[in-house]
Amino acid sequence: MIEVKKLEQIDVPGGDVLKVANLHELDKFGEVYFSEIRGGFIKAWKKHSQMTLRLVVPVGMVRFVFFDEGAKRKLHDVSIGRENYSLITVPPGIWFGFRGIGFDLNLVMNIADIMHDPNEIERLDLDDIEFNWGDL
Amino acid sequence: MIEVKKLEQIDVPGGDVLKVANLHELDKFGEVYFSEIRGGFIKAWKKHSQMTLRLVVPVGMVRFVFFDEGAKRKLHDVSIGRENYSLITVPPGIWFGFRGIGFDLNLVMNIADIMHDPNEIERLDLDDIEFNWGDL
Repeated sequence: MIEVKKLEQIDVPGGDVLKVANLHELDKFGEVYFSEIRGGFIKAWKKHSQMTLRLVVPVGMVRFVFFDEGAKRKLHDVSIGRENYSLITVPPGIWFGFRGIGFDLNLVMNIADIMHDPNEIERLDLDDIEFNWGDL
Repeated sequence: MIEVKKLEQIDVPGGDVLKVANLHELDKFGEVYFSEIRGGFIKAWKKHSQMTLRLVVPVGMVRFVFFDEGAKRKLHDVSIGRENYSLITVPPGIWFGFRGIGFDLNLVMNIADIMHDPNEIERLDLDDIEFNWGDL
């Protein structure tokens, strides 16, 4: 299921080094891309039928919420970023949404196991899944 | 040699999507990591004998300077970031250094073609290569 793994941060003068993953830790490499998410904004909901997501937040803090395939049962609710620096692995068939928690810019990286394919993505509107994101 | 390729940015409400690369564009995947570089700071010099670097700057702006294997001849001097959003491919055997140009945080991602191996890295002090970084 959804897996959250702590990652290593190395203190370096002038700017830290943030480790992510090597080829032994990722079974398959398909595509890398970034999604910015401004503080307070929500991007939700999306489900991939084929793609496994590997999510990292190197800047700011982002809250991820996951629902089961039927969009009824909440599976996980976790915030990651420069505090709680972690990798979330999300298998296919899971609804997810995320919100920028850091005041200004928050940055999500996804190391997907397959290449982008619009045909394997389903979307729901924010209100289509009953979830209270609460106040920031 | 050193190759600089423009990348696609997609406007999205709440935060843009920044494309990087898929498996057809990267011959080999070894390891992904981030290096922060604070505004005005310089990290220099380093040379990899085996690793090809694929460098992207999704936050801020970073100036990269490249010298030949003998550390005598400047090969390239380029700033990339959210403006001039690009991927720099650096083959092995090239000295490189970089400086944070954006005021606060600048973030470099490297998609290396091999895993981290301290034995294939050489280092020189900042003053060991004659180069005037100038004012910010």
